[in-house]
Amino acid sequence: MSEFRPRIAMTMGDVAGIGPEILAQIASDPEIMDLCQPIIIGSPEHLRQEIEQQGRDAVVEEFSEAKEGMFSRNGIACWNPATVDCAKVPIGQIDGKAGQAAFDWLVAAIELAQHNQIDAIVTAPLNKAALHAAGLDYPGHTEILGEKCGVPEFAMMLYLPPGKIVQGPSSCLRPAGPYGLGVAHVTLHTSIASVPSLLTTEEVLSKIELVDVFLKRLGCTAPRVGVCALNPHGGEGGLFGDEESRIIEPAVERAKALGMDARGPFPTDTLMYRAVQGEFDGIVAMYHDQGHIALKLIGFQQAVNVTLGLPIIRTSPSHGTGFDIVGQGKADATGMKEAIKVAVKLAQHRQEQTE
Amino acid sequence: MSEFRPRIAMTMGDVAGIGPEILAQIASDPEIMDLCQPIIIGSPEHLRQEIEQQGRDAVVEEFSEAKEGMFSRNGIACWNPATVDCAKVPIGQIDGKAGQAAFDWLVAAIELAQHNQIDAIVTAPLNKAALHAAGLDYPGHTEILGEKCGVPEFAMMLYLPPGKIVQGPSSCLRPAGPYGLGVAHVTLHTSIASVPSLLTTEEVLSKIELVDVFLKRLGCTAPRVGVCALNPHGGEGGLFGDEESRIIEPAVERAKALGMDARGPFPTDTLMYRAVQGEFDGIVAMYHDQGHIALKLIGFQQAVNVTLGLPIIRTSPSHGTGFDIVGQGKADATGMKEAIKVAVKLAQHRQEQTE
Repeated sequence: MSEFRPRIAMTMGDVAGIGPEILAQIASDPEIMDLCQPIIIGSPEHLRQEIEQQGRDAVVEEFSEAKEGMFSRNGIACWNPATVDCAKVPIGQIDGKAGQAAFDWLVAAIELAQHNQIDAIVTAPLNKAALHAAGLDYPGHTEILGEKCGVPEFAMMLYLPPGKIVQGPSSCLRPAGPYGLGVAHVTLHTSIASVPSLLTTEEVLSKIELVDVFLKRLGCTAPRVGVCALNPHGGEGGLFGDEESRIIEPAVERAKALGMDARGPFPTDTLMYRAVQGEFDGIVAMYHDQGHIALKLIGFQQAVNVTLGLPIIRTSPSHGTGFDIVGQGKADATGMKEAIKVAVKLAQHRQEQTE
Repeated sequence: MSEFRPRIAMTMGDVAGIGPEILAQIASDPEIMDLCQPIIIGSPEHLRQEIEQQGRDAVVEEFSEAKEGMFSRNGIACWNPATVDCAKVPIGQIDGKAGQAAFDWLVAAIELAQHNQIDAIVTAPLNKAALHAAGLDYPGHTEILGEKCGVPEFAMMLYLPPGKIVQGPSSCLRPAGPYGLGVAHVTLHTSIASVPSLLTTEEVLSKIELVDVFLKRLGCTAPRVGVCALNPHGGEGGLFGDEESRIIEPAVERAKALGMDARGPFPTDTLMYRAVQGEFDGIVAMYHDQGHIALKLIGFQQAVNVTLGLPIIRTSPSHGTGFDIVGQGKADATGMKEAIKVAVKLAQHRQEQTE
């Protein structure tokens, strides 16, 4: 195990949701404390209250500004650079103050990462409607990150770490490959009707490359990347749809010519099965649900979002703000923990590259 | 357990594929022999050869015509009404003779079912290209069944029976609901580009009804049917796609007004997860991969195809002819067994209704 303990900023997200509950669990988790030097960027009041409520053993050490040495191990560091006071926001409801604070915390974390004061950002969920209520017109974290980093080309990857099969009330499969399974999407938040016209060979190739690079950063030296067909049965030789031969195959061929182990396009229903059984390390999906149906099904709590193509490292759990379960003791920090572990690995890889 | 042992015709499908291997396993399976009165409609030479090859204990009792009492328990009944001789067809290759024989066997089985000489048909896989090589221009079993039964409206359901989670080389989850999980598709073998224009409220409603009826036949008195959204996040309130509010919601409302427990449309990635966790008994998917990604992923070998809307009962395993693994001892009869068990349940339900 690497000796390098990355400095990780964890943003609290929307305080009306399960972010504070989850971070209270994280703040008292010895495994996480051993892996990294954490700072929570969010509301110290919410954090303290949740720690007390859950009867956890963690001291919140509040900082009034970001500075060297703030990652003390006497407690969990917390910094609140919000431009609004969200202490009185009611739980489980959309509130512009919560949206504004979530935005401010993310922007502060991005700036810390850009100035190399932290090594990675892990974000608790925010609420798009609360952002809108604050007059902030972003679909979500990814677009804010892209804008603040000045990056026009980025992609959302859904990543399921390797691990054991879990049985019980939230049973899950796990990908059999040693590096887990990462899925990048060529199109994402767009209608199914618009997907075929948005696919280009360049976009498919670019996503194959992003998956290849991501997996190499996790230590996989020769990532096996499976590429999804768009149509059922891969279009059955052109009988129903020709995007496979016209758009996707040329991208796979170009990726191969560039030295990548890309294969496909394959019918997606069997490709996802083969990938989970260990035949592939990464997948390029043509649209949102192709990737999300599979990964949420087999690892709902464990799936991690990774923003690819940024100059900084950012991961998050794949779940939302959980307005329907907030304050009921049901929030599960598994996804946040997995997201932190992935961020740690990516930061350690970057450290090794620069040493 | 019902005393009624239905008469089940099992068609051999394409003899160049894994059909004969699988039926040799079935023919010597005491559980299947206890559940039903089987007759294999196919090549007795292929069946005998496979039984010998596998060292199994089963006697093939050949019948030269379909008649009463052919379901003897001294051995496994076999009848070959093919119009061509396919004894010399090489394995693993497309061959018109194999295609013609597979077609003849299916047609013979349909006629037996129509004349009430059998209670259900379970089909081993056929090969579309071999059908074409024989000059038979059908996409597959379902369309032949629809035509021969004179039924214009039918649907393919993918059904995963309830059961235990399997770990190991082909690990799978199982739906937690007591009646398993059935998925019907509003569109099937058509390009993604054509899907949005093919969806209508009538078609969605018709599929909800077919799922409801199917599950009731399995003994589920009040089936909970979840309906998929077409677009990611269910279109996010119309931001990307409006098929949810325009087409799918009205179908769900009409189904509710007709007394069915239909719900949705829901974003498909979380709906599939919720369904597998036991929240739904049936799903209506808008397109092929929505249903197939989920069910093949969690139960690749176990998923059963059921043709809905026919006057006769027909099921099949969801896998193909396996030309790539034929003759290697790798063929797995699990899917065929599951398909037979589902056919037995449906036939027993029909028997109870007519008693």
